[in-house]
Amino acid sequence: MDDLIKPKILKGFRDFLPESEMERLRVQGVLEKTFRSFGFLPIDTPVLEYTEVLLGKGGGETDKQMYRFTDQGGRDVAMRFDLTVPFARFMAGHFHELYLPFKRYHIAKVFRGENTQRGRYREFMQCDFDTVGTDSASADFEILLVMRRSFLDLGIEGVEIRFSHRGVFNRVLGNLGLAEKSVDILRTVDKINKVGEEEVRSALARLAGDAAASIILDYIRPGDSNDDTLGKMIRLAGTEAEDTRRIASILSWMKALDIEKTFILDPSITRGLDYYTGIVFETFLTEIPAIGSVCSGGRYNDLASLYTTEKLPGVGASIGLDRLLAALDELGKKPAREASTDILIFHTGDADLPACHAAAAALRAEGLSAEVYPEAQKPAKQFAFAEKKGIPLGIFIDPAGTGRVSLRDLERRETREGLTLQEAASDAKRRLSGPRS
Amino acid sequence: MDDLIKPKILKGFRDFLPESEMERLRVQGVLEKTFRSFGFLPIDTPVLEYTEVLLGKGGGETDKQMYRFTDQGGRDVAMRFDLTVPFARFMAGHFHELYLPFKRYHIAKVFRGENTQRGRYREFMQCDFDTVGTDSASADFEILLVMRRSFLDLGIEGVEIRFSHRGVFNRVLGNLGLAEKSVDILRTVDKINKVGEEEVRSALARLAGDAAASIILDYIRPGDSNDDTLGKMIRLAGTEAEDTRRIASILSWMKALDIEKTFILDPSITRGLDYYTGIVFETFLTEIPAIGSVCSGGRYNDLASLYTTEKLPGVGASIGLDRLLAALDELGKKPAREASTDILIFHTGDADLPACHAAAAALRAEGLSAEVYPEAQKPAKQFAFAEKKGIPLGIFIDPAGTGRVSLRDLERRETREGLTLQEAASDAKRRLSGPRS
Repeated sequence: MDDLIKPKILKGFRDFLPESEMERLRVQGVLEKTFRSFGFLPIDTPVLEYTEVLLGKGGGETDKQMYRFTDQGGRDVAMRFDLTVPFARFMAGHFHELYLPFKRYHIAKVFRGENTQRGRYREFMQCDFDTVGTDSASADFEILLVMRRSFLDLGIEGVEIRFSHRGVFNRVLGNLGLAEKSVDILRTVDKINKVGEEEVRSALARLAGDAAASIILDYIRPGDSNDDTLGKMIRLAGTEAEDTRRIASILSWMKALDIEKTFILDPSITRGLDYYTGIVFETFLTEIPAIGSVCSGGRYNDLASLYTTEKLPGVGASIGLDRLLAALDELGKKPAREASTDILIFHTGDADLPACHAAAAALRAEGLSAEVYPEAQKPAKQFAFAEKKGIPLGIFIDPAGTGRVSLRDLERRETREGLTLQEAASDAKRRLSGPRS
Repeated sequence: MDDLIKPKILKGFRDFLPESEMERLRVQGVLEKTFRSFGFLPIDTPVLEYTEVLLGKGGGETDKQMYRFTDQGGRDVAMRFDLTVPFARFMAGHFHELYLPFKRYHIAKVFRGENTQRGRYREFMQCDFDTVGTDSASADFEILLVMRRSFLDLGIEGVEIRFSHRGVFNRVLGNLGLAEKSVDILRTVDKINKVGEEEVRSALARLAGDAAASIILDYIRPGDSNDDTLGKMIRLAGTEAEDTRRIASILSWMKALDIEKTFILDPSITRGLDYYTGIVFETFLTEIPAIGSVCSGGRYNDLASLYTTEKLPGVGASIGLDRLLAALDELGKKPAREASTDILIFHTGDADLPACHAAAAALRAEGLSAEVYPEAQKPAKQFAFAEKKGIPLGIFIDPAGTGRVSLRDLERRETREGLTLQEAASDAKRRLSGPRS
C-alpha cells in the first residue's frame, strides 16, 4: 500500500466523466454546426508556443498567470492562456495562404495559473469566433446574428445581447475634455453591473469631476427604445459620424429581419480592454442574469500588429463554455436522457455470444447503439449495470436459437417477447424517441 | 518593423488550417459515432498532471521526453505524454463512482519532446478506446469488432487486423527454457516487419541459440488458415490452455459473424511493451502496408496497479490519428469537397444587405450553410473569394426587391434566374448532393 502513488489531480484542473463530457461535446457540436452554417470554419493551434510570441508586449496579470518554462531544447515556452493571441500569430503567419475576409472558430483548452479561490479553473475551454480582414458593418451584424442563433439552437429563449460602440463613447469623453482618461473611465463604467451606479458615480467624480460624472452616467443609461438611445448618443457625442451611422444601419437591419427584440443598445457596455475600437457587446440570459455575460466581444482595428505590418481589422466574440454549461444545467436545458448506450444485450450464456454480438451488429446497422454484457453474470448484476450506465433498453436472445428476442424496457419494466430483431429495432426506436418516465 | 515579433511556432508543433482541421474533425466524428454505437463513452482528463502521477515507476525514454516543469505553486508538473497513464489514474480515482465494466474512449492531444528528425510531432492526437473491469474474451472480441467497424465506417475496405496472444508465446518460450528472456525475445520478434527475418534470426540466435531461434521463427510464421495457425500454436505450446481456448472462441465467433477474412491470427504480433498480458493486435491497410499499423493494442491484466489495489483487467486499442489521416489522404478517401460554406450571397449594394442577410437566414433554416460577402467589392473580387474558400454556389439578390434570386453554380458556371428562395434552396441541395466536376 505504501508504494501506491496517490491518484490526485492538480488544483484547478478537472476530469470529465462520461456524463459531463457527453454534454460538453453535445453543446460544442451544436455551436460548431451554427458557426459552420454562417461560413465560420475551424482552425487549431498548438497548446505550447514561444513565450515571446504569447507574451507580446505583455506584462501584468497575464504574464504572472502563464504556465511558462524552459523546454528540453532550452527554449522559453508557455502554454496558451487564450485563443486570441495564437489567432493573431496564426493570421500573421498564414495570411498569404488564406483569403480575406477570413472567418474562423476555435474551441480549445487554455491555461491560466489563476487563484482558484475565485472559483476559476486553471484549465478551461474557450470558444472564439472572429471575422478578420474587413471593417464592414455587415460583419459586425453577422457576429451578432451568430450569437443570437447559437443560443436559440441550444434551446435558450431568453437571450439579451447588449451592445454599444467605443467610438461614440470616446467622442463624448473628448467633448468633456477627458480623452486622455478614456481608458480609466471606460474601465470604471464597465464595472457598473458589479459594483452599482453609486460606486461608479463616486469613482467617475474622482476621475473627472461631478459635472462630467453626471453627463457620463446620463450617457450610459439606455433609453426607452434603441432609437431613443441612439438619439441620446448622437446628442451627447455632438454630431452624427461613421460610428453612429453604423449603429443606425445595424438597428435598421435588425428591424428588417424582425429580430430587434433580442438586442439592446446599451452605452454602458464598454468591455474593459484597450483592444476594442468599435462595436462591443455582451450577452445575458434573462432567466439567470446573475451568471453574467455568457458571450462577449467586439471590433478591433488591428488583430496582428505585434507580428505583421499587414493591417487586419476584425470583429469577434468569445463564449465562456464552462459558464454556458452551468447555465444550461440551471435552465434545465440538458437533454432528459444523456446519450448512453441505447440497448444492452444481456449475457445469457457463453454459447449465445455469437448470437448476442450478431444482434448487436444488426441493431447498430439500424442506427441504434448496442453493447453485449461481456461476462456470464447473474441477471441482477447485469440489470444493475444497465441502470448505473443509464441504458434504457435490454434484449434477451432466445437460447433455443430461434433468432427471436425479448425486448425489455428497463425504465417502464415492460417486456415484449418473441420479436424478430427487425421488430425489436423498430420498437426500440419508438421507445427511445418517446417521452420517458 | 524591428519591433515586430516573428510569428514562428515551435518545431514539432503545427497549426491546422480549416481544410485539415475540418478533415480531422470529420474523421474524429466518424470514430466517435462508431465508438458510441458500441457503448464506449467519452471522458477527458487534464493536459497537465503531477509529474509523480505521470511518471509512475517511470524512467527511460518517456521521462526524457516529458514536458516537465515547476508551476507557480512550486509543484512538479508535466504535460501528458499518452492517454493510458491518465486513464489509469482516472480509474483509480473514480472507480467508486463508476460501474464496471467501464468502456471509454478518449481523443486528445499528447506531448512528447521527441527528436523531430524522425518525422515525429511533439504535439499529436491520440485516440484510445478501452474496456476495463472484465477479463472476458467477449470484451477482447468487441474491441476487435470496434476496430473493424471503425475502418469500414471511414470507407476503408482493405483492412487486415493481425492478432495473437502473449500467453501462448510465453508458454512456448517456457518450454524452451527461455522464460526469463521473454521480454527481450518478444521485443526482438516485434521488429520483424521492420528489420526482416534474417536479422531477427541472428538476434534470436544470440539470445537463445540456433535451435531455439528456429523454433521461435517457426512459431511466429502464420499457417495457411487461422485454424492451421492455432493448431501450430497449440502444438508448440505443448497443450491447450485458457489462452488457446480463448483464441478458438474468438475465431469461432468471427466465423459466426462472417467477418473472419478481416482477421489474421499471426503469432509474430507481440507488441513490444511489458504491459500486455493477453491478446495483442495490430492493424494494416492492405493498399498501403508500408504505413505500418494504424491501430494497435491488447489485453493487460491490471490497468491501475500503480495507484490502487483494486484490480482492473482490461483490453484496449489506440488509433494513430495522424497516420490515419495521412492514410486516408493517400487512399483518396477524403471527401471530394471539404465542407466549406455551401452558398455565398453576393454583396450587390449596401441597400440590399437586409435582403442578403434574410436570404442567408432562410437558406440556413433549410439546413444549408450560407454567408453574406461583407463588403461592397467588385464581383470579380467576390468570385475570387468564393473560389479560394471553396464555396460552390452563389446567390444574387434581385436589387429591384422582388424577393427573387439568381443561383449561380460557381463550378459549372451555370446561372438560374428568377427563383424564389425556396426554389433556390431545393436546387442548391440537389447540386450539393450530386457529383461535382
